[in-house]
Amino acid sequence: VTPGVPPTPYLRVDVARLEQNVARAATLAADAGVALRPHVKTHKTLEIARLQQHAGAAGITVATIGEAEVYVGAGFDDVFLGYPLWLDERGAERLRQLTDRARITIGVESVEGARNAGRHLAGRVAALVELDSGQHRTGTEPDRAAAVAVAARDAGLDVRGLFTFPGHSYSPDARASAAADEARVLSAAADALRAGGIEPRVVSGGSTPSLAHSDTGVLTELRPGVYVFGDAQQWELGAMAPEQIALTCRATVVSHAGGRAVLDAGSKVLGADRGSFSTGFGRLPQHPDARVVLLAEHRATVDLAGAPLPPLGSQVDVVPNHACVAVNLVDELWADTGDALVPWTVAARGLNS
Amino acid sequence: VTPGVPPTPYLRVDVARLEQNVARAATLAADAGVALRPHVKTHKTLEIARLQQHAGAAGITVATIGEAEVYVGAGFDDVFLGYPLWLDERGAERLRQLTDRARITIGVESVEGARNAGRHLAGRVAALVELDSGQHRTGTEPDRAAAVAVAARDAGLDVRGLFTFPGHSYSPDARASAAADEARVLSAAADALRAGGIEPRVVSGGSTPSLAHSDTGVLTELRPGVYVFGDAQQWELGAMAPEQIALTCRATVVSHAGGRAVLDAGSKVLGADRGSFSTGFGRLPQHPDARVVLLAEHRATVDLAGAPLPPLGSQVDVVPNHACVAVNLVDELWADTGDALVPWTVAARGLNS
Repeated sequence: VTPGVPPTPYLRVDVARLEQNVARAATLAADAGVALRPHVKTHKTLEIARLQQHAGAAGITVATIGEAEVYVGAGFDDVFLGYPLWLDERGAERLRQLTDRARITIGVESVEGARNAGRHLAGRVAALVELDSGQHRTGTEPDRAAAVAVAARDAGLDVRGLFTFPGHSYSPDARASAAADEARVLSAAADALRAGGIEPRVVSGGSTPSLAHSDTGVLTELRPGVYVFGDAQQWELGAMAPEQIALTCRATVVSHAGGRAVLDAGSKVLGADRGSFSTGFGRLPQHPDARVVLLAEHRATVDLAGAPLPPLGSQVDVVPNHACVAVNLVDELWADTGDALVPWTVAARGLNS
Repeated sequence: VTPGVPPTPYLRVDVARLEQNVARAATLAADAGVALRPHVKTHKTLEIARLQQHAGAAGITVATIGEAEVYVGAGFDDVFLGYPLWLDERGAERLRQLTDRARITIGVESVEGARNAGRHLAGRVAALVELDSGQHRTGTEPDRAAAVAVAARDAGLDVRGLFTFPGHSYSPDARASAAADEARVLSAAADALRAGGIEPRVVSGGSTPSLAHSDTGVLTELRPGVYVFGDAQQWELGAMAPEQIALTCRATVVSHAGGRAVLDAGSKVLGADRGSFSTGFGRLPQHPDARVVLLAEHRATVDLAGAPLPPLGSQVDVVPNHACVAVNLVDELWADTGDALVPWTVAARGLNS
């Protein structure tokens, strides 16, 4: 028993790899002359957001008011809440409290949503108009963007520009084409805004799979999230190499039932995300041919593809499919600095509102 | 703004339905003359475990040492840890602390695992031998059960009998056949133990999908978990009716993008579980034909199957696919008593170790 080492399963961060990942994206953005505003929902920790800030991030992106509260409370003063909030008075009051200490920018994607936000927050917040660039989740079309922007401006929001999330980049063959879609849609919407008399100072996009393909002739800002860690999805998409992955779950082999290794890491620490392109529920860095073929709440069944079974009681590492949801399942990450394992609090864990 | 009502998305418990579900299973077990030892990983709360206890539960089932600590700390004194623990000294010491206050029973499924448990816990805990009844996750075969039981006994564990989880009941056509598999495997293993000189006083099985089919001529104990709430899986399996479902996520409609309703409840509150038989990522009680067709971390996209879109800003309820993982994502459940919304702490949330 080593003091300071938690029982399995626990999430471990390779700090050297993390720092390399943070630096790589910072350099990419700096070289292209665009701002980097990382999505901190991926890690939900203050330590990693500060690394990103020190590497030159222009601000941060969050998904919820609760996340914004954590980061503004810790001193982050430029926060984009990239979500089509439907504000009520209570949510608006929480945001107003933050505008005393930080520049807050929100997402709008409909005339009704813009007017509702303006009713509560006129003169207090900036806004970016969300475009659908092909994921078909939220966001308006380029030919509607000017109407939304004008409604937001008329409702008292400071319309600073446009954003999209090219989430359809989560497909092995679509990383470059999703970035092209992103650029085309943002460019068309920017033209529409200018024709409507609103200059889009911010044109924001980016995702980890499409990052290397982002058109920085069109975009002024990139908002990737997962790049700090990588995960099995990025590995299988070809967006990050296994030796760049900085987040793993350390697990114990508890069973050899059926001639397979069963680990004590299940869906309650790895998450159950599985994209259509995923080959399993997680990957093992030490066994690239192995797959997590069955996932229960506290059991991952690993097919080792013929490799010898790791002994009962031994520990192995698993790369979660999706880092963002794994992190949200734990109270702390264990940061391996090379000298020690240090707990980093997942300060914004569970803050869905 | 109603005081005491949390912002969306939040998980809501219909207490009247919950009590009916608790009573229904208690009656089923009592009528059959078997013990009910519910799996409390489903709800991870003390309030619901006490309801189960008051309804006559013979004890509780947990999945991790951390869950056991929470419940023993709250006074529960008969706890089955239904998992093939691979104990180290630290885990064993945590269990020894509990044995001063509660009867602790653990699962064993291999000779090596039984010997390892005995090295740490001889004379302190009881054990049940786990059988694989068809899910092929963990558990031994009937013809190996006696060897495991003898090893456990010889290692100093009080071998009380057998258990299995017929998880292959999670298939629309397999609810009855999985229960039959369960009975056949447990019966064969019980015979093997008796032939080896060990009387199986406990023969434990059960799952929510197979509950109505459990062979209580063979089984002495049932361990369902999800039955307290129900979820979209149970609805789609035909194991519970939609009007019995006691756990929903209340969400706000934030977007009408693409002519669909987008809700602020995503995978970080609903969970991303999706069985091969699932028709989506969740169901809407008020719209039985609707499906959650796309799930992101903070967005559920609902295809309403032609029904009018609920207005932007309105609230709708979503039934998560899998109650156990949804509950583990939140710090509290909001119990709707009919008169008030009362927060129930998810006391064992995140306790994977």
